[in-house]
Amino acid sequence: MIMRTLIISLLSIGVIAAPSAALAANEPIQPIEAAKPKNADMVELGKMLFFDPRLSKSGFISCNSCHNLSMGGTDNLPTSIGHKWHEGPISAPTVLNSSMNLAQFWDGRAKDLKEQAGGPIANPGEMGFTHELAVDVLRSIPEYRTRFKQLFRSDKIDIGMVTDAIAAFEETLVTPDSRFDKWLKGDKKALNQTELEGYKLFKESGCTSCHNGAAVGGGSFQKFGIHEPYKTTSKAEGRFAVTGKDADRFMFKVPTLRNVELTYPYFHDGAAATLEEAVDTMGRLQLGRTFNKEENAKIVAFLKTLTGKQPEFKLPILPPSTNETPRPKPFG
Amino acid sequence: MIMRTLIISLLSIGVIAAPSAALAANEPIQPIEAAKPKNADMVELGKMLFFDPRLSKSGFISCNSCHNLSMGGTDNLPTSIGHKWHEGPISAPTVLNSSMNLAQFWDGRAKDLKEQAGGPIANPGEMGFTHELAVDVLRSIPEYRTRFKQLFRSDKIDIGMVTDAIAAFEETLVTPDSRFDKWLKGDKKALNQTELEGYKLFKESGCTSCHNGAAVGGGSFQKFGIHEPYKTTSKAEGRFAVTGKDADRFMFKVPTLRNVELTYPYFHDGAAATLEEAVDTMGRLQLGRTFNKEENAKIVAFLKTLTGKQPEFKLPILPPSTNETPRPKPFG
Repeated sequence: MIMRTLIISLLSIGVIAAPSAALAANEPIQPIEAAKPKNADMVELGKMLFFDPRLSKSGFISCNSCHNLSMGGTDNLPTSIGHKWHEGPISAPTVLNSSMNLAQFWDGRAKDLKEQAGGPIANPGEMGFTHELAVDVLRSIPEYRTRFKQLFRSDKIDIGMVTDAIAAFEETLVTPDSRFDKWLKGDKKALNQTELEGYKLFKESGCTSCHNGAAVGGGSFQKFGIHEPYKTTSKAEGRFAVTGKDADRFMFKVPTLRNVELTYPYFHDGAAATLEEAVDTMGRLQLGRTFNKEENAKIVAFLKTLTGKQPEFKLPILPPSTNETPRPKPFG
Repeated sequence: MIMRTLIISLLSIGVIAAPSAALAANEPIQPIEAAKPKNADMVELGKMLFFDPRLSKSGFISCNSCHNLSMGGTDNLPTSIGHKWHEGPISAPTVLNSSMNLAQFWDGRAKDLKEQAGGPIANPGEMGFTHELAVDVLRSIPEYRTRFKQLFRSDKIDIGMVTDAIAAFEETLVTPDSRFDKWLKGDKKALNQTELEGYKLFKESGCTSCHNGAAVGGGSFQKFGIHEPYKTTSKAEGRFAVTGKDADRFMFKVPTLRNVELTYPYFHDGAAATLEEAVDTMGRLQLGRTFNKEENAKIVAFLKTLTGKQPEFKLPILPPSTNETPRPKPFG
């Protein structure tokens, strides 16, 4: 009786929501919940750094250049453009919901967002800078000095602080309230019949064996090309590059399918221009199954219900460089 | 008596502000007033287009790439980076308060913002696209079709509509409430002694003969290099490129000095890295006067009071491409 009263009380104040929780619990995909930032000042600093092209040698490329938050947290290009228009070897994964990945990069070579954030800054084919020079730029700008000091209680700035702040911002880039989440939480009208049938097919065909959880992916490495090999001109070999083990060749991190409508083109080489093409390839290569046109359309319709509320925030205003700030070298 | 009552009434409801109006009226620089957008939906569409890199051939460069609204509406580079990392021939002028310029571009070859907006899209060394292809991209995206239809009452989209919308957004990019504006409006404490002396020197030396009005510039073309020639490796010849008249050689549009603290480096070739250097060069070449170190510092202090409230808005979320959208060609 006491327990029953307690449950009713919790229900009434909304701590637990019986129908939705019950429904979601039976599904391989869980609703995604809005981020609850621990430190708003850290997030704000991270946002500034995310948008600051002075972290690149050229002064032209910021994190947002390839993880464009106007466009689903990616650049919508097959492979990315880096310093001096370098053609990157791989397609930029979305930064949206990336905090839920088991590791970062397609090959998982960074264990978390903090470790990831340092990579592109120092990659000659991406931002083309060094951690030391990037930090020198920030140190020369009074507003950055003040913000770092307030947050880290230190007069110095180091790259670990920079990547801490960027990661804190990126952790807020979660996209709740998709139509599929509404359905998971009990709103039966949130999906139409085609979308529901697409979801059923998605589950029954085995897609959810990898694309599951709150992020609908991101939780494991899997071999790309199980039933037949994936044909590509890309030289990326996935997890093998990290472990050197033959068994890890062509093992890639399973991407999140959240906002997949926005994150075209698809696969690590960006070779699939459309969702239809991606679904067809995944069916054949990963599941040994050819979806007919109608089945393909249903799955695509379901996938488009995974588009969530995009992060909303003001474009950050960056503090100006000073006479002491090292100047960018776009053509040097 | 009736007139006196009327004036007192107007004063009391703030329609006229006697002390400030009187003060500003005697100054060669006028306060800048916040924009009053006529059509909020048009501004919103223009903002989306301003941030949309799909108006470039590469899908990577947007208006905001070189007129970065996080950084004073410019790229803070001596010359800009264009398609395939092309090195531009000239320094990107700020888009802030640009609606007040007598014409657009350093040589004034576009009569207004609408005419300007089409230039970079089709410039092979900037966005590298064509107007036709840019419009094809927009036509393929349902949300853009809907927005254009609502605004222009037409099923078609043409480049004139695109540049109308971009110009409408750019007209909102006005930066009021600088400390200097506060001083102009009667707040005597808004400037310190050094800044006031800098302003006095700025006026008395003749800087205000060109840098005047609400935008502190932008109102005329002037020859760069009056008392001695300007030495530069830049091939830009200013207004001569438009008129073909010898008298217009090295005639450039006088840039606005609003937010000049943010719009480094300076001059059409971006050769002056600091405000101190810019003030020194302008004194010698334009006024035949060498400012000593103290004078230079005072003028620089004054110039920094011209930094206004930067435009605040949410980063726009762009509608995704569809299967019909022509794909960008970053490396093609």
